[in-house]
Amino acid sequence: MPLRDQHVVIVGGGFAGLSAATALAKAGLRVTLVDRHPYSVFQPLLYQVATGGLNPGDITYGLRRFAANHRLGAITFRRGSVTGIDTEARAVRVSHGAPITYDHLVLAPGVGPNHFGIPGAAQHSRSIYTRGAALDVRDRIFSGLEALSAQHDPDRRFTVAVVGGGATGVEMAGTLAELKSEGLPAVYPEIATDNFRVVLVEMGDAVLAPFEPELRDYTLAQLRRRGVDVRLGTTIDRVEQDRLHFADGGSLEVDVVIWAAGVGAHPVVADWGLPQGRGGRILVDRRLRVQGLSDVYAVGDAALVVDDPLPQLAQPAIQMGRHAADQIVAAVKGRSGTDFGYVDKGTMATIGRNAAVVELALPGGRSASVTGVIAWLLWVVVHLRSLLGGRNRLTAMINMGVRYLTWPKSANGIIGDIVDPGTPGAVHDDD
Amino acid sequence: MPLRDQHVVIVGGGFAGLSAATALAKAGLRVTLVDRHPYSVFQPLLYQVATGGLNPGDITYGLRRFAANHRLGAITFRRGSVTGIDTEARAVRVSHGAPITYDHLVLAPGVGPNHFGIPGAAQHSRSIYTRGAALDVRDRIFSGLEALSAQHDPDRRFTVAVVGGGATGVEMAGTLAELKSEGLPAVYPEIATDNFRVVLVEMGDAVLAPFEPELRDYTLAQLRRRGVDVRLGTTIDRVEQDRLHFADGGSLEVDVVIWAAGVGAHPVVADWGLPQGRGGRILVDRRLRVQGLSDVYAVGDAALVVDDPLPQLAQPAIQMGRHAADQIVAAVKGRSGTDFGYVDKGTMATIGRNAAVVELALPGGRSASVTGVIAWLLWVVVHLRSLLGGRNRLTAMINMGVRYLTWPKSANGIIGDIVDPGTPGAVHDDD
Repeated sequence: MPLRDQHVVIVGGGFAGLSAATALAKAGLRVTLVDRHPYSVFQPLLYQVATGGLNPGDITYGLRRFAANHRLGAITFRRGSVTGIDTEARAVRVSHGAPITYDHLVLAPGVGPNHFGIPGAAQHSRSIYTRGAALDVRDRIFSGLEALSAQHDPDRRFTVAVVGGGATGVEMAGTLAELKSEGLPAVYPEIATDNFRVVLVEMGDAVLAPFEPELRDYTLAQLRRRGVDVRLGTTIDRVEQDRLHFADGGSLEVDVVIWAAGVGAHPVVADWGLPQGRGGRILVDRRLRVQGLSDVYAVGDAALVVDDPLPQLAQPAIQMGRHAADQIVAAVKGRSGTDFGYVDKGTMATIGRNAAVVELALPGGRSASVTGVIAWLLWVVVHLRSLLGGRNRLTAMINMGVRYLTWPKSANGIIGDIVDPGTPGAVHDDD
Repeated sequence: MPLRDQHVVIVGGGFAGLSAATALAKAGLRVTLVDRHPYSVFQPLLYQVATGGLNPGDITYGLRRFAANHRLGAITFRRGSVTGIDTEARAVRVSHGAPITYDHLVLAPGVGPNHFGIPGAAQHSRSIYTRGAALDVRDRIFSGLEALSAQHDPDRRFTVAVVGGGATGVEMAGTLAELKSEGLPAVYPEIATDNFRVVLVEMGDAVLAPFEPELRDYTLAQLRRRGVDVRLGTTIDRVEQDRLHFADGGSLEVDVVIWAAGVGAHPVVADWGLPQGRGGRILVDRRLRVQGLSDVYAVGDAALVVDDPLPQLAQPAIQMGRHAADQIVAAVKGRSGTDFGYVDKGTMATIGRNAAVVELALPGGRSASVTGVIAWLLWVVVHLRSLLGGRNRLTAMINMGVRYLTWPKSANGIIGDIVDPGTPGAVHDDD
């Protein structure tokens, strides 16, 4: 059968979905890309949006632009949320418009926060896994500082608690700590630095647990030196509107809780009737086919290869998307499929200006560690290079560059509207 | 009395307020700047944000950054809405924190839409005079196009009506027309161009009424050639959720109504107990003192010099702010005040890529007209130069440049979240 007669529906325009779409379009198949948003967002830099370092537009790429950059008709974009999958009729039902039939289906719905059933966590914490959520966090943080500034009450504190000491939690806490120690004296001189508290709560006995021990120690020391109150071995028992309760009976008064303790498959997956594993992730075989189905693939953070789980990062997602595309092309050509093998290039996390950790994967399972300014520059180059679109690379570079050069005065250079912190659900100030 | 003992409170961080603050800080007085938002927004480019050409951050400048760029302690920023003015006690009451006492007060609260009491206009139309409002318009427009794209219904149309043929209305309608005629075929190929309608409704018999006749004719011809349905001599009788009713009995089905028919003083002014004139503007004498008060000045779009009304533009606002500062310095030094005289440099408006009109004011009350590409380039240079902050100038230049060079594919390069058009009050899509 000619490749151009084959219609592939891809659900989700993140790293995995776009990687699959590009490979399939190049191979000559017809692709329909479905996403609930009309854009792709560069998730690894959302914490920068949440802390006012980047504009959301710097890391947003229009999916219609993505489609228009391929040959005409190769990729069609459909905006909508997938409400169900009919594997008999080979069709996905969407929230807007008619169902879409497919010959092959690639599911890449991405993630949402995993609250592990901790009472109150879903209601009273924020996440930074979507553009909207990151903007909400940004506006809550700067609104809290504005309120602190207006009150002139030396006893009033503003506390941001970050739950989870993985890369997301470390990056968020590290950036907030810089705002506290360097930004506050310059742009909020009326706030006593001690009245803005940044707390990082981690259940285990180290931050950045998957990294080498010397990188973990470096990160912990850097965070503490920059003013983060890091609490290791601290388990959250329940979350209230204004208080975190710990398993040891202690508690912490909080204004904003950022949940970075874990991710699960996006909740929409639960409606699809597919086999789900830990964190709600879709169970796939080593060829990335959803268990029990031959023409449905799941890739990216929401897919779980049961006997070989992968970290939920950009690189595995991109490689899985490309592999699923290869499997589809092979199936159409009547060739046999191949198992997915992840090529690990290494991982990195940034702590603040001039401080990051990089663990490079070397041949033979060895690894090399880099810390400090060199690691930070590596981190900057890799992230700017990976942004989709020249506009995004340029504007992100300028915004990061200006922030770097004019820090601490630029501490609130990118700001949004005021959120009334007393009101649940982001009520904005009047215009 | 030494200048540094004099405390000036400035209400509003727009063109007029910042111009006054800069002049007063330079002269050595202490300034407290109060604004309901923590940022200043470059209002002349808000229509670009509303049409996805610029990021809101490109034209937003943090007021704390502004304060930090002056000598330490010269300018203090206070976030809050002014709820009342006690001219006896010389204090302004604010929504957040304690009242602020002043020796001199400068009021520069800016504008809101003036609906002229037309029934339904306030409830069912949008404006683009604030950052939040412009983002709401942007998200409604692109949400409407996404919905049109999903429906596959050849009879379903999406209509944006712009009310008012002044500069704001022309710029908004012209940009939307380009999106219709050039953007749609590239990024929304499934939408028939005719199904997206851009209508400009103007009560008078010309667009850009204050401009020279040949500029008005050029603008009208350009708008029509680019696909705007311009309806001159059309008065709005009332506005419903989905329909505009005209005085002649006709009506138009609409999805989004953008109100650009006129501005009045920001509604908060009504609570201040000051003399107000047409459009709620604060009445001032020729020295810009609020009528009946000697130490309170009003400047910018919200001020009305009764016997010499000025256009509500950036240039008069900037010059008025500086003049009020001069009056305060003169008063402190025991010198007599001077009347304000507006130095008109000319006005400009853009219609779309490569098309704008510029009317330069020449000595002797004469003027020179420029149209086309040269006018458009003048417009670009003047607006980029006027942006506060190097970051803003650079990122705005890049976003405008990329849009220029990659148009029409970049037609939805800058996009936000989806608004459910059926729900009043901007309900965003689930994440």
